[in-house]
Amino acid sequence: MRKICVFVGGRANYSSIKSVMSAIDCHPRLKLQIVLGASAVLERFGRVEALIRRDGFEPDYVFHNIVEGENPATMAKSTGLGLMDAAMVFDNLQPDMLVVVGDRYEMMSVTLAAAYMNIRVVHTMGGEVTGTIDESIRHAITKFAHIHFPANEDSRERIIKMGEDEKYVFNVGCPRMDLVAEELTNDSYSALKDLFVNYGGVGEVLDLSMPFLVVSQHAVTTEFGNNRQQIEQTLKALEELHLPTIMLWPNSDAGSDDISKGIRTYREKHNPSWLHLFKNLPTKMYIHLMNTTSCLVGNSSSGIRECAFIGTPVVNIGTRQNKRLHANNVLQVDYDYRKIKDAIISQLEHGRYERSNIYGDGTAGKKIANILADCSPPVQKTITY
Amino acid sequence: MRKICVFVGGRANYSSIKSVMSAIDCHPRLKLQIVLGASAVLERFGRVEALIRRDGFEPDYVFHNIVEGENPATMAKSTGLGLMDAAMVFDNLQPDMLVVVGDRYEMMSVTLAAAYMNIRVVHTMGGEVTGTIDESIRHAITKFAHIHFPANEDSRERIIKMGEDEKYVFNVGCPRMDLVAEELTNDSYSALKDLFVNYGGVGEVLDLSMPFLVVSQHAVTTEFGNNRQQIEQTLKALEELHLPTIMLWPNSDAGSDDISKGIRTYREKHNPSWLHLFKNLPTKMYIHLMNTTSCLVGNSSSGIRECAFIGTPVVNIGTRQNKRLHANNVLQVDYDYRKIKDAIISQLEHGRYERSNIYGDGTAGKKIANILADCSPPVQKTITY
Amino acid sequence: MRKICVFVGGRANYSSIKSVMSAIDCHPRLKLQIVLGASAVLERFGRVEALIRRDGFEPDYVFHNIVEGENPATMAKSTGLGLMDAAMVFDNLQPDMLVVVGDRYEMMSVTLAAAYMNIRVVHTMGGEVTGTIDESIRHAITKFAHIHFPANEDSRERIIKMGEDEKYVFNVGCPRMDLVAEELTNDSYSALKDLFVNYGGVGEVLDLSMPFLVVSQHAVTTEFGNNRQQIEQTLKALEELHLPTIMLWPNSDAGSDDISKGIRTYREKHNPSWLHLFKNLPTKMYIHLMNTTSCLVGNSSSGIRECAFIGTPVVNIGTRQNKRLHANNVLQVDYDYRKIKDAIISQLEHGRYERSNIYGDGTAGKKIANILADCSPPVQKTITY
Amino acid sequence: MRKICVFVGGRANYSSIKSVMSAIDCHPRLKLQIVLGASAVLERFGRVEALIRRDGFEPDYVFHNIVEGENPATMAKSTGLGLMDAAMVFDNLQPDMLVVVGDRYEMMSVTLAAAYMNIRVVHTMGGEVTGTIDESIRHAITKFAHIHFPANEDSRERIIKMGEDEKYVFNVGCPRMDLVAEELTNDSYSALKDLFVNYGGVGEVLDLSMPFLVVSQHAVTTEFGNNRQQIEQTLKALEELHLPTIMLWPNSDAGSDDISKGIRTYREKHNPSWLHLFKNLPTKMYIHLMNTTSCLVGNSSSGIRECAFIGTPVVNIGTRQNKRLHANNVLQVDYDYRKIKDAIISQLEHGRYERSNIYGDGTAGKKIANILADCSPPVQKTITY
Repeated sequence: MRKICVFVGGRANYSSIKSVMSAIDCHPRLKLQIVLGASAVLERFGRVEALIRRDGFEPDYVFHNIVEGENPATMAKSTGLGLMDAAMVFDNLQPDMLVVVGDRYEMMSVTLAAAYMNIRVVHTMGGEVTGTIDESIRHAITKFAHIHFPANEDSRERIIKMGEDEKYVFNVGCPRMDLVAEELTNDSYSALKDLFVNYGGVGEVLDLSMPFLVVSQHAVTTEFGNNRQQIEQTLKALEELHLPTIMLWPNSDAGSDDISKGIRTYREKHNPSWLHLFKNLPTKMYIHLMNTTSCLVGNSSSGIRECAFIGTPVVNIGTRQNKRLHANNVLQVDYDYRKIKDAIISQLEHGRYERSNIYGDGTAGKKIANILADCSPPVQKTITY
Repeated sequence: MRKICVFVGGRANYSSIKSVMSAIDCHPRLKLQIVLGASAVLERFGRVEALIRRDGFEPDYVFHNIVEGENPATMAKSTGLGLMDAAMVFDNLQPDMLVVVGDRYEMMSVTLAAAYMNIRVVHTMGGEVTGTIDESIRHAITKFAHIHFPANEDSRERIIKMGEDEKYVFNVGCPRMDLVAEELTNDSYSALKDLFVNYGGVGEVLDLSMPFLVVSQHAVTTEFGNNRQQIEQTLKALEELHLPTIMLWPNSDAGSDDISKGIRTYREKHNPSWLHLFKNLPTKMYIHLMNTTSCLVGNSSSGIRECAFIGTPVVNIGTRQNKRLHANNVLQVDYDYRKIKDAIISQLEHGRYERSNIYGDGTAGKKIANILADCSPPVQKTITY
Repeated sequence: MRKICVFVGGRANYSSIKSVMSAIDCHPRLKLQIVLGASAVLERFGRVEALIRRDGFEPDYVFHNIVEGENPATMAKSTGLGLMDAAMVFDNLQPDMLVVVGDRYEMMSVTLAAAYMNIRVVHTMGGEVTGTIDESIRHAITKFAHIHFPANEDSRERIIKMGEDEKYVFNVGCPRMDLVAEELTNDSYSALKDLFVNYGGVGEVLDLSMPFLVVSQHAVTTEFGNNRQQIEQTLKALEELHLPTIMLWPNSDAGSDDISKGIRTYREKHNPSWLHLFKNLPTKMYIHLMNTTSCLVGNSSSGIRECAFIGTPVVNIGTRQNKRLHANNVLQVDYDYRKIKDAIISQLEHGRYERSNIYGDGTAGKKIANILADCSPPVQKTITY
Repeated sequence: MRKICVFVGGRANYSSIKSVMSAIDCHPRLKLQIVLGASAVLERFGRVEALIRRDGFEPDYVFHNIVEGENPATMAKSTGLGLMDAAMVFDNLQPDMLVVVGDRYEMMSVTLAAAYMNIRVVHTMGGEVTGTIDESIRHAITKFAHIHFPANEDSRERIIKMGEDEKYVFNVGCPRMDLVAEELTNDSYSALKDLFVNYGGVGEVLDLSMPFLVVSQHAVTTEFGNNRQQIEQTLKALEELHLPTIMLWPNSDAGSDDISKGIRTYREKHNPSWLHLFKNLPTKMYIHLMNTTSCLVGNSSSGIRECAFIGTPVVNIGTRQNKRLHANNVLQVDYDYRKIKDAIISQLEHGRYERSNIYGDGTAGKKIANILADCSPPVQKTITY
């Protein structure tokens, strides 16, 4: 039995890998190991740990590695701490392979620990282009990874161009689409019925049978210092539109404190009746919101990926998703409240788009598990040119 | 004044960057900051710190980050600790750029800290191919680096192929050649006269006016567990040749304990009169040894680089320098005492080779300092394709 | 010049040592070094760092060591990280003495670093009895400390009984009284005039010319798991009293999340018009609140110390200040909303108490600086019996 | 079943707690958990880990926390790292109690982790007086410990005087005597027959049927900088005596490098035929050496404890055992080669002493296990006065 360890560092991570975890767990020749760290173990980010357990998974190890401060120095320090913890964890778990998702800073912790300890590194969502520190992290992980599962063809080609052996680069699509496909077999309006009762949040209850917006805007770490002003442009656009709006608090990147403060200050000052804030929603709820919203606004990768698969109109703001392959459902705008407002209006007029499979067809998890059961790349990698 | 921070993590590091440090220090528009860590601060590796001070440099920060154990898990843990330390150091020093040398595991510590903290990363010796964990580290650093100074043309092209912007990739040659060029203006035999008196070591005094070998063999981290047997093959070849031999103890990679033990056991058992061991020699002495030895044996990168510049015959053993560009002075062999022995004999018959400039012409330091004073790449990198 | 390093780990810390810092800074034979860490560098706790700078002090080093999670394991992990950071900081600052305040968990970090590095440890506020983990920490610091400055006679005697050399145990009073004495030369009602304008917080503006309560209740780490219920008893008592109440958010001990959540939930549910919450107030404002409130409620040490000096009526809840010497201004009650309510009513009826000097006369800072300039205990301590 | 976790940090530790581990393991109501760290996991200190496994124990967790450097700053840093590791380990193991031995610096790591995490701390060998940093550590651990097992009556009384509740302070004797008592049922000369064959070491084979010395001298951390000179006085005394001498390398305290260097330099210079060095000997061998040597020399605690139980003549040098209770078998001398030499001669003339039970009667392990099965002190400690 191959021991396949999956590291989950946060909520988005978990959505991106859950179908893979299930498929590994069910596979007769694979043994699933689960390690949780970073924001996945923090109350502040909605305790993904509890969610994972509710889904029937049992974490093998849990570590706390986020050093408070939310500035670039503590982001680095947290990664160092995670690396030390991961070294100890892997020394005890002795996995054959480690599955690493995407590109958040904590992913370098587990990637380095595994690579240095001669554990094969499996990377999902590599090869994408975003023009942020996440991009450097993503490509650096690619250089340590032994098996690559990019989420689209564009990315597959880029990974190979970077010198990776194409024998070990597989475009299986994005595992998040697996969840979307599965969840959308249910009716969205029924699913969302008790949203405000069940998940609380702050702000008034909104009528989701009417056109409404969903906003998810995260910190851009390389623009540390500007994040407060960026969210304020978005808020100003929303203020003028005065449409029912569901907004999500930002994740834990350096700069997220500024965004949170921007939102909090706005709320205290304007007490907007049209705005409802959620700390964290179950992925399922979020999928149904994407399926019913008139327009998704912000810089979340879900706008690029899931919304392509669903056909949701999206206004993507700023540089965070800069160069990620997107379908025609996305309008790209700067941090300028007028442009944000105009783009939202334009999307409202357009309405729903056609589904696109550029990020997969909803069967990525199973494809990945099958490949992991058989693929045996050498520990000692080398560039192809 | 641009603040350029140079991290030195060990003796080899220092030789690779010393001429750059001098050139930065002399440059009217650059301010040099020096940070020492990893094996550069340990007695066991010859206290490079003391050497650096003797050369007239004043370290701004010194940190201890090597976790004892010398296995893959502590290598990872040491890197994590170094990352935490580096975050704190850079937070205090606030450099504009960080210069990172090569590919040893501790280099990921400072690279990540700088990259996450929006400090531009300058990388020397990138783009080389060796087929070991060092190679993954080297390419990962490339993906974080903003300015690249590969040591040869081959590497420059590879870095660009990996998607780096060619505006920021400069083949200036290897800065270690600067030291060699400078040192070889002195006579080697005079320089080596009191080698055994001044630098002690263990074993009998050898007559360096006669043909002699120099051996430097380090652990191959991806072959952890085999290192003992690998050094034993080399020792067996040397045993049969019975030539005067100067051997250097291995550096601090995972597995170095096995090599040290192999050497120690051999010595205690055979008490070889032809073998003299040095823990650490000043770079100068090592240069003169390369200039006078009949053949350099092992897997040190000096055999590939400096010996090309000098014209020294080299027998390179095993996979550690696997795919590094080399001149025609190198014979490559497996871990097999017969092949090692035959290759040494063949090199003794050939004698000195012509000088090759594939690793530079001895002016890399100045070229680098000049570029750093003017070059301003964006903090936010992105791949070129 | 003796280099005296003062470590500040949070807001309460700073109030406890500020007059000492000033006195050291002014002393002709002492050089002040300032190191900040733990919650002193976090936004979430009101950025004591900024406050310190505004007071004219310049920190020599700042480190982030709080690992998120706010459970007992991360409290331990934070202490470990602080110890690693402190070792590096002291190695660079090379102080002759380290001043450590009180008993919070982070204080073990700097105490151990100093003691192991042969730096003399100076401890204020030792010898007190509280029956919590803080007490064990406090006494353990005493066993590492070379010079002791207990805040009252009772504590002085206890320290000597524990085997410390009485030559080095000085009852100088509590330095926090220095601040109180100085601040109360100003009129409290004028000072508080723009409290709500200047310091925001959440909840309605209260009329401080009428009788009002001040509540400050922190987590009890050895009762982890019960903290939510404990704060709920207090909130229930307050609910019934319906008096204007200023409440402070808890500090960063394990369990503080539960308290915060208890408060937040209560507010969202009851939307109490009588309650105003402040995240952090300047010490000055807090002193004037203690001077004007009808009763201070909770488990803050300020109820025991400052309120004795001022004569404020206090209701102290639960075990946190269990055995600390207190004057007759304090009523002690259990976690029971009826008893809390009754005690508050009883204090309202009693009104202001006579000032007590059991915690000093307001000149501790100068006394401490003078002693530090002359006192030279041996590095190598030993017990007296 | 109570889960009793024993932390072993080195060879001496293990000897001090082995009989307790066996007794816990055999007890029907106790479950033994074993955690190894510090020098117990390092080759350099003889891999106590392997020894423990050979004795039939299975470690539950192993962590590497020694940061290289062997100076006071890395001693502190190692403790910080150990504390972080221990927090994670205890979070996974969830022991009811932690058994901590003695007073070495790494013991603060596990003690703090346990105390902060509400795990009861059990301390053996507390209450002793040595006048070194170890003493401060020992007493600080006492202030965190819930149950105390001092090794003699003197220590029991001291712990109670320090304010610990006498209900939880038990003089059971020193568990190391259990091993001695058990081992000395075998004949020492037979046991030592193949000492040199089996355990190697460096230097010539000595005739142990003739009078011989055993020397064990460790670094005194508060005298960092003087350790080289101290060992040189001892070596000079030995040089003049020219008796067959078995010497042990020092343990890993700050300063041990200096002692090792002193010994190594002496050996290389004088090549003494009378001196044999062992890195580490099994405790059994060491017991038989204490039983047969004419005199034990140095500053090891075994001279004070085991040698009292056996009746071995001892010359104790310097301050390390300064104030530990000793029987009349010990002569105390300064770091002065003349005094050392005279004291050795005087002990040779005196010969064997009477056995003393001041450090126990050889049944400590069982007594401790029985008490741990029943004793339930409150988590929340407080001083008795």
